[in-house]
Amino acid sequence: MAIGYPNGKKYAASHEGIPQKKRKAPVTYGKRGMSLEDDLNDTIAYYLAQDIAVIHKKPTPVQIVSVDYPKRSSAKIKEAYFKTPSTTDYNGVYKGKYIDFEAKETQNTTSFPLSNFHDHQMIHMANVLKQDGIVFVIIAFQKIGETYFIPFEKFYPFWQRMQSGGRKSVTIAEIQDVSDQIPYGLNPRLDFLKSIEKLYF
Amino acid sequence: MAIGYPNGKKYAASHEGIPQKKRKAPVTYGKRGMSLEDDLNDTIAYYLAQDIAVIHKKPTPVQIVSVDYPKRSSAKIKEAYFKTPSTTDYNGVYKGKYIDFEAKETQNTTSFPLSNFHDHQMIHMANVLKQDGIVFVIIAFQKIGETYFIPFEKFYPFWQRMQSGGRKSVTIAEIQDVSDQIPYGLNPRLDFLKSIEKLYF
Repeated sequence: MAIGYPNGKKYAASHEGIPQKKRKAPVTYGKRGMSLEDDLNDTIAYYLAQDIAVIHKKPTPVQIVSVDYPKRSSAKIKEAYFKTPSTTDYNGVYKGKYIDFEAKETQNTTSFPLSNFHDHQMIHMANVLKQDGIVFVIIAFQKIGETYFIPFEKFYPFWQRMQSGGRKSVTIAEIQDVSDQIPYGLNPRLDFLKSIEKLYF
Repeated sequence: MAIGYPNGKKYAASHEGIPQKKRKAPVTYGKRGMSLEDDLNDTIAYYLAQDIAVIHKKPTPVQIVSVDYPKRSSAKIKEAYFKTPSTTDYNGVYKGKYIDFEAKETQNTTSFPLSNFHDHQMIHMANVLKQDGIVFVIIAFQKIGETYFIPFEKFYPFWQRMQSGGRKSVTIAEIQDVSDQIPYGLNPRLDFLKSIEKLYF
């Protein structure tokens, strides 16, 4: 299913609760066939069940135009459109501190294209940083099975470099320089709170 | 437009970006004709613009079933349903601390019906409290123009009372006993961060 935002950007459909055909497994080494979103959903569910942190993925923003309301017990949305999100996908609380992040995966093996982010997501993350929130990005190179935790303040300079005419992507070496690698585990699958403990507490 | 969740609960449509007829102004004294949601959207926009806090209303959760994708530039959702939210509507960050709340308005003048809340919202707020988040409810009695800030730990006992067979509503006197009244202002309209400053810092 290839669907898009009105601005032409690709939309990664949430698989939650929607029946679908089995997804094709990508070639990975560290793990097999799970998307970054699946890994993170599994991880935050684990954190919640274990009383470790309360982190949720925000619903996909949708502009509802027309709703059919045949009976009181059910409302069917007949016309709606995807809206460009004005914030990041994930936020929550860990030890009283505000946590906010965006997660992106790429099939590239040597660099991460910055076109995966929207300008207003950068603005949102900069605003969170001003409020002393813990804000970061998680980038997964799915084909080589490597996932990185990058504090926003270390990631933002790459965005600024692009805005001032520099390259439109970040090399994996540049990412490794400023990030903490998140190893894959069984439960939780992507224990990114370990990076938070290491970098912020 | 009266639409509902599949479970039969009323759904309060977000007015954001959707053209609609002018709403009927309710009888109020402290202010004129604005819904609690309007007041809060205005207030959090003010906080954001002034670099005071970053708080957002979460998108309405929707389960997307069918999407029409005629051209790359536009995707039309043809079939979707409202999902019961698993968290509260608002969260964000203020001075590094995690903020989480639910806001409800009632046309009653003497008590607040607890049926306005879902059980899983209570569970979510209890989870946030365990993580030392700042979590509360805002209740507006629109007809008498009074709005109250109630820390979740003071509100939850009313819910527990109902669960153990007690009354299904909270009297306004009971609310006044455990809350901080939020006065209406011009800008911001509902300065609830003042209550947070008073109670948590």
